[in-house]
This record gives sequence, structure tokens and C-alpha cells, in this order.
Amino acid sequence: MEIEVAKSYGFCFGVKRAIKIAEENPGSSTLGPLIHNNLEIERLKKDFDVSLATTLEDVKEGSATVIRTHGIPKNDLAKLKEKGGEVIDATCPFVTKPQQIVEQMSEEGYDIVIFGDVNHPEIKGVMSYASGPVFAVLSIEELQKLHLRERVALVAQTTRKIEEYNRVIAYLVPRHKEVRVFNTICNATFENQDAARDLAQRADIMIVIGGKQSSNTKQLHSICKSHCPDSYHIESKEELQKEWFAGKKLCGITAGASTPEWIIEEIIGKIREFKV
Amino acid sequence: MEIEVAKSYGFCFGVKRAIKIAEENPGSSTLGPLIHNNLEIERLKKDFDVSLATTLEDVKEGSATVIRTHGIPKNDLAKLKEKGGEVIDATCPFVTKPQQIVEQMSEEGYDIVIFGDVNHPEIKGVMSYASGPVFAVLSIEELQKLHLRERVALVAQTTRKIEEYNRVIAYLVPRHKEVRVFNTICNATFENQDAARDLAQRADIMIVIGGKQSSNTKQLHSICKSHCPDSYHIESKEELQKEWFAGKKLCGITAGASTPEWIIEEIIGKIREFKV
Repeated sequence: MEIEVAKSYGFCFGVKRAIKIAEENPGSSTLGPLIHNNLEIERLKKDFDVSLATTLEDVKEGSATVIRTHGIPKNDLAKLKEKGGEVIDATCPFVTKPQQIVEQMSEEGYDIVIFGDVNHPEIKGVMSYASGPVFAVLSIEELQKLHLRERVALVAQTTRKIEEYNRVIAYLVPRHKEVRVFNTICNATFENQDAARDLAQRADIMIVIGGKQSSNTKQLHSICKSHCPDSYHIESKEELQKEWFAGKKLCGITAGASTPEWIIEEIIGKIREFKV
Repeated sequence: MEIEVAKSYGFCFGVKRAIKIAEENPGSSTLGPLIHNNLEIERLKKDFDVSLATTLEDVKEGSATVIRTHGIPKNDLAKLKEKGGEVIDATCPFVTKPQQIVEQMSEEGYDIVIFGDVNHPEIKGVMSYASGPVFAVLSIEELQKLHLRERVALVAQTTRKIEEYNRVIAYLVPRHKEVRVFNTICNATFENQDAARDLAQRADIMIVIGGKQSSNTKQLHSICKSHCPDSYHIESKEELQKEWFAGKKLCGITAGASTPEWIIEEIIGKIREFKV
């Protein structure tokens, strides 16, 4: 069986930057997981003594805290600063941007619609910057329930698919006087998605590597599955099953933006060991 | 043969308003045709002595001039005022709006894209309010040739189809940081289009009445033709041909926003005379 890695995959700019910041601050803690990849977080603990504070209460007074790539809510940031320790911002700049947009548009009187998952930390953070009406939706059905005013500003979770974002826009435009659309979807996400789609159209089996909480990895898996039914989303080599590969000719590999290279290499190594 | 008139058709708010303004100003002239309907313009001349000045040069010094529903370019307005006569604005308020939007967005540094026909008087007027880059396009092919900057403001000709506007938006959003979409398509246009579509789906023949230059009538004709192949765009009863109606059971009637009721009644009368 041949193994082919997607032309674009894995670590994005924001994740690389956040890991570098964490490595440069040994002994600090992160408020919530720095990135959505448990194995990498274990490595940072082991090699750099960067620990995980699950909640604000876990942050020790006066200790240095790194803000995760997804950002944190505005109030949490204020409370964190009150604790007196150094606050090191590893929020992805592509996430800081929608935070700033939401803050400004809200001040200018727009109703804010965020195309994203209300339970995802990125969206919790972005929403917190609104001073007026703000809603996070993932479907037209959810949109239909909203009572929005005439002027709407729209941002997207960085990891969403552009085609779905366009459906949200197409729903809103005929119903409002002004829809101010900000393209906050990250290019790295596009590039990984395009490359995954290309490969999935040719592969017999696709292995999509990344954290189970990772939104962009889930998106990659969904794209792969629509072109290659035998697509599996795994986090580590332990999840691989030899029988998946029986009779397959081409195995495609892709990985989410928070998946480190060493995990991808481990998984490819184990697949080769199957000698299919 | 049964004759059925669409649930919504004919004169829109802006046209009714403009005709009322013209009737209230006997002896005035209009700069360009007041509305896109030659027969109604002849009636205004005959009954109210409202004449047509084809160009600025035709406007007599000091004489009262009515601005047409489609509006006129900013420079022409300035020159008209210099002639010293009264200037009476019959520009449709739904056209004044995109003129103001283009002026403001251009000042704020947006590149302006107008989804509309560069040769239509409405669009010539709207474009003239830009102080920076401005482009009128009717297709994605035309859009692809443009070199637009990061922030784009978008308005539509009042008579365009919303589905096509959404295609323009869907093209621009992934390619720009911000696309500020103004819904300048007129509701009257939507209502006439929806009603025409409903009727065309059931009719064997559709008669679409309106000026040959009328953008919204052409749109109605295009919608009807896609559901009912025997759809005819006519301006007056003289164009009707008896053989069109042979063997038809249901004749649908609709009319553009600039088509007066008396023309529609004349045409229905003549169809009935065919006794099909």
C-alpha cells in the first residue's frame, strides 16, 4: 500500500507561534489547553514544565500565565490580570482580529452574528467582546429564530468552511439593509482543506490526525469522508487498526492545525509496520 | 382561454411618486425619460405639457426640470442647477439611497462594486457619487478582471435578482478581508418577480408588459421564460399576435414597475377580442 501525505497539513502559523511562546516561558501555566492536542500539551509539561490551569481558580496568584491560541473571554482576561502575575498572550492573531471586529462593530450599533460553535473557546472569547446583541449560529435554522435589526455584522470562526459561511450570508442579505461581512476564516484552514479534498478524491483510505476537540480537524474529517468513505479521525497511533487497511492501495494522510509533526511521523511509522 | 393577472405587478412606489411629481409640475421638462415607458411619457406630454429634454443642452436656461426616477450623475445635477431653473427631484428614494452609500463608502476608503448595468441611467448616476475606485459588473467573469483592494463595499441595481447578487457576494467574500454588502434591491421588484414566477409555473403563455429599455421588465421576462417558454415581452397592444394564443388554456399577465394600468387594460382588452 502506498502512503501519501496531503500537500498542505498540520501546524498553522498561530499554533507554531503559541508553542514557541510556551517553550520560551518554562514554569508558566496556560489557562485552558494551549492548543487542542493533548499529546503536545503533555510534551510541553514534560520538557518545559508548562502546566495546565483548567479554570481561573487554578491560576496561582502572581504566577505567569499563557493565554491559549483560541483566546479567552474579555472578563477572564481582566480577572487574570487582577491575579498580579505576568500575562503572556499566545492568542492567534487571526483570533484577536475577530475579537477586535466584534468590539468595534458592536460599538457602532451593529447586531453581531458569529458563524461558529457557541461552545468552542474561540467563539466564547470572540462573543465576549460585544457590548450589544451578539449571537453564535451554526445553521440557517438557528438564524431563522433570531430577531436581528437592520444592520448586521458577520464574522466566522477561523476554522469554518467558506461554502457554509456563504450560505449564512445569502440568508441574511435579502433580509437586512446592510450585512457587513468580515472574512475571518483562516487561510491555513483553506489550504489544509483543499489539499485534503484533492487527496481524498484519489485515496482508498484517509487517516485524519488531530485532537478530538479540534474544530479544524473535525472539518478535515468531514471533507475527507464526503470523498472517501473510509476516513478515520484519530489522535494517536494507538487508535490505528490493521484491518482498516486490508486491500487498500492508497492511504492518504492529513492532520489538523494543532497536530505536531512528531505525532504524524509516529502514525505513519505504525502504518508502515502493518506491512499492508 | 382564461386570463390571470399576477398577484403583484406594475407601478412601484417610486414610479407612482415620479408621475405625481410630473403631473404637479405642468410645463416642466424631464432630463431624460422620467420612467422607462414611452407611452406614459407621451401621455404626460399630451395631458400635462411635461416635455422631454434628451440632454443637458436641451434644457432651457431658467426652466423647471424634473429629475427622472433613475436619478442623474452628480456632475449633471450641478450643471443643471447652474442653468438657474427650478430643479425638482423625482429620483426614486430607493435610488437616492445607493447614491448616498457609494458617496460615503468611497470617502471611507472602500473600493466600490455595483452589481448592475454600466449603461443603465440608474447605474451611471450611482457610480458618479464615488470619489475613489468604482466598478459596475454583471457577471463573475467581469469581477475576475478587477483588481480590488482588501475592503470592498457592494451595492446592487434596484432591479437585480437577489440570487445573482448572492453569487457576486459569494465570489468576493473569500477574496477580501471585508465585504460590506448593502441590500439596495427594491422590495417591489422582489414582489413582482415572485408573483410572476408563481404564475409562469402554471400558465401556458405569459405576456410581460413594459418598456423595452426597462431593466425590471426584462428581468420579469427572463424569470417567466425560464418557467414558461411561451413568454413575450411587449410594450403595447400593437405587438400582440393572435397565433401566440392558439391552443392555450391559461394566459398569465404581468407588467414592469414603470407600466401604467391603462396600458395593461388595453392589452388585456385586445387579448379578449381574439376570442381564443
